[in-house]
Amino acid sequence: MKPRLKWLKDQIMSMNLEGMIISNPVNIRYLTGLTEEGTFIVSSKENVFVTDGRYIESVNNKLTLDDEIVAYDQKDLTSYDYEQFFNMGDKVGFEESYVSYESYKRMFKTYKVNLIETEGIIEKQRVVKDEEEVEFIKKACEITDSAFEYIIKNISKGMTEKEVAFEIERYMLQHGGDGLAFDLIVAFGENTSMPHAVPTDRAINSGDIIQFDIGCKYNGYCSDFSRVVFVDEMDEGYKKVYDFILEEQKKIATAFKEGANIKAVIKDRQTDYNMMGYDIAHAFGHGVGLEIHEIPTLRSNIDNLLKENTIVAIEPGVYIPGKFGIRIEDTFIVGKSFATALTKASKDYTIIKLK
Amino acid sequence: MKPRLKWLKDQIMSMNLEGMIISNPVNIRYLTGLTEEGTFIVSSKENVFVTDGRYIESVNNKLTLDDEIVAYDQKDLTSYDYEQFFNMGDKVGFEESYVSYESYKRMFKTYKVNLIETEGIIEKQRVVKDEEEVEFIKKACEITDSAFEYIIKNISKGMTEKEVAFEIERYMLQHGGDGLAFDLIVAFGENTSMPHAVPTDRAINSGDIIQFDIGCKYNGYCSDFSRVVFVDEMDEGYKKVYDFILEEQKKIATAFKEGANIKAVIKDRQTDYNMMGYDIAHAFGHGVGLEIHEIPTLRSNIDNLLKENTIVAIEPGVYIPGKFGIRIEDTFIVGKSFATALTKASKDYTIIKLK
Repeated sequence: MKPRLKWLKDQIMSMNLEGMIISNPVNIRYLTGLTEEGTFIVSSKENVFVTDGRYIESVNNKLTLDDEIVAYDQKDLTSYDYEQFFNMGDKVGFEESYVSYESYKRMFKTYKVNLIETEGIIEKQRVVKDEEEVEFIKKACEITDSAFEYIIKNISKGMTEKEVAFEIERYMLQHGGDGLAFDLIVAFGENTSMPHAVPTDRAINSGDIIQFDIGCKYNGYCSDFSRVVFVDEMDEGYKKVYDFILEEQKKIATAFKEGANIKAVIKDRQTDYNMMGYDIAHAFGHGVGLEIHEIPTLRSNIDNLLKENTIVAIEPGVYIPGKFGIRIEDTFIVGKSFATALTKASKDYTIIKLK
Repeated sequence: MKPRLKWLKDQIMSMNLEGMIISNPVNIRYLTGLTEEGTFIVSSKENVFVTDGRYIESVNNKLTLDDEIVAYDQKDLTSYDYEQFFNMGDKVGFEESYVSYESYKRMFKTYKVNLIETEGIIEKQRVVKDEEEVEFIKKACEITDSAFEYIIKNISKGMTEKEVAFEIERYMLQHGGDGLAFDLIVAFGENTSMPHAVPTDRAINSGDIIQFDIGCKYNGYCSDFSRVVFVDEMDEGYKKVYDFILEEQKKIATAFKEGANIKAVIKDRQTDYNMMGYDIAHAFGHGVGLEIHEIPTLRSNIDNLLKENTIVAIEPGVYIPGKFGIRIEDTFIVGKSFATALTKASKDYTIIKLK
């Protein structure tokens, strides 16, 4: 049995539950390594993965005896079989933040058990990364850094936001990325004023600011990274915001060590924003792992003591509606004394010439 | 007010509800055209889109007075504001198949209303496509057809499944697609035996069968399309399955007219499969629209009378574990007398030569 599944079974016992029904595919992947659709049922009798005809062959190819997981095609299970996974009325954990209200009601009828909320135990466990997970995220960060270095040398006259975004994607997939971590953001000029700009057909112009917010996956693990660069020239007006943002990111990284409270660190940043008269358009960052947005969210209402080997994206941004925005973001790993960036591209003012 | 929102307000009245809280982003897009994250609250007082600082500027740029929708940044709303959207205890619809059990409980506390299940009214309305939606899907189908024609002429020696999939993606995005409809499937040889194969680094060989399952989006609307082709030669052993699958698809398309019952049509197909001794690994198809998998699902337990202008992917497949699989799929529009394919690439036996 894999250590993560062993861990979960210990948790289930300590919560006085008879088992747990896991529906969130990310949690299933974390526990079992399986990426196929299905439901993972952990009971004191056995560990069962229920999938369907589209995936059963692939699942059986992956599972070994050591996994101690039995796979079934759902069409081979009767309603009686489902009732036998647990005893009637058993206390069984479920994922209340993933399962829809409708599925909750169906689950109750199917298993005939007492469904108990588990308050994100698996998501909480996923916050601290093990050695292998850190290696995967480092690799995703390296690919992202190189994609950025590549693209800023290869933007040519007339290219659109969409074309630049696609070139970055192509680079990432051809250099080991197994997918994008999210829909890439590439915004030119006034489009940068929207934190979640979607790439358009707007073409690049001399004098533009360019916002990149890009990331890829490596073995399923994400990177998250943002930079701005300037085309041909950098207007003096950008410097104040740029320097402020960079300083804010540095202050968070310096404070983010084992035992630091997210709430206290972010409250101080809010004070800085208020003193400058800047709006806070979004959180200062978020956990990164198998999902691009994981807990902890970096907000002043999150009372959470950081743990070593937590991986977070730190991304302060300032947006002047209708004019421009600047966001700088790196993926960091929390250490004993501070957080270290895993994405390493330069944060100096960068002016590019179009090819 | 847009006709779709007008329609929803009429539905809300006829269900004796005071309003509805819409959380599913696809339904929000369908009703409002907005693609930004947020919650859409329809009440007898007003129509409100609650978003956050990442999206508020973009939302305000899109909405016009005609929309009769007010947008708020959630940070400007107090808990008192939320309680004012409705009167305490009002009967208000929610999306029980989208909202998590946890969000349901939170919603109840936030709005202080009586939350009523709405049984997918918006999803049901989305089944029948209007003229504009049909045009978008036709365009997505055209791009998909051309991508297929392009790729089968351009597979060269040594290419891997991943490389072929990426070339298709590149073609789609460069020819008007605004994204993929799903993770493309390209499988060579024995990998075709898994209906949901994920592209690997396996390289192409002479004698291989290739399974494509590809689709793109155009203005948010999807296409879905599958073909198999053969490299250099076609083993006689494939023909029996190929012909069977093609005939099954034709039988479904011929029967799929206004008023036909999905259950009856699919039951007949199951009889055919049983007579041949083939397993049924997945549904025979599904609705296609803003989502790649919409209702209706083409299964024998779905009692549903088809309506004109419903768009469905019809995709019978046969899979011989460890050996090979064949699936043929087109996106069809249901008409008065039969269903017409919108993807039109040839379904003759196709043997390709590697470049």
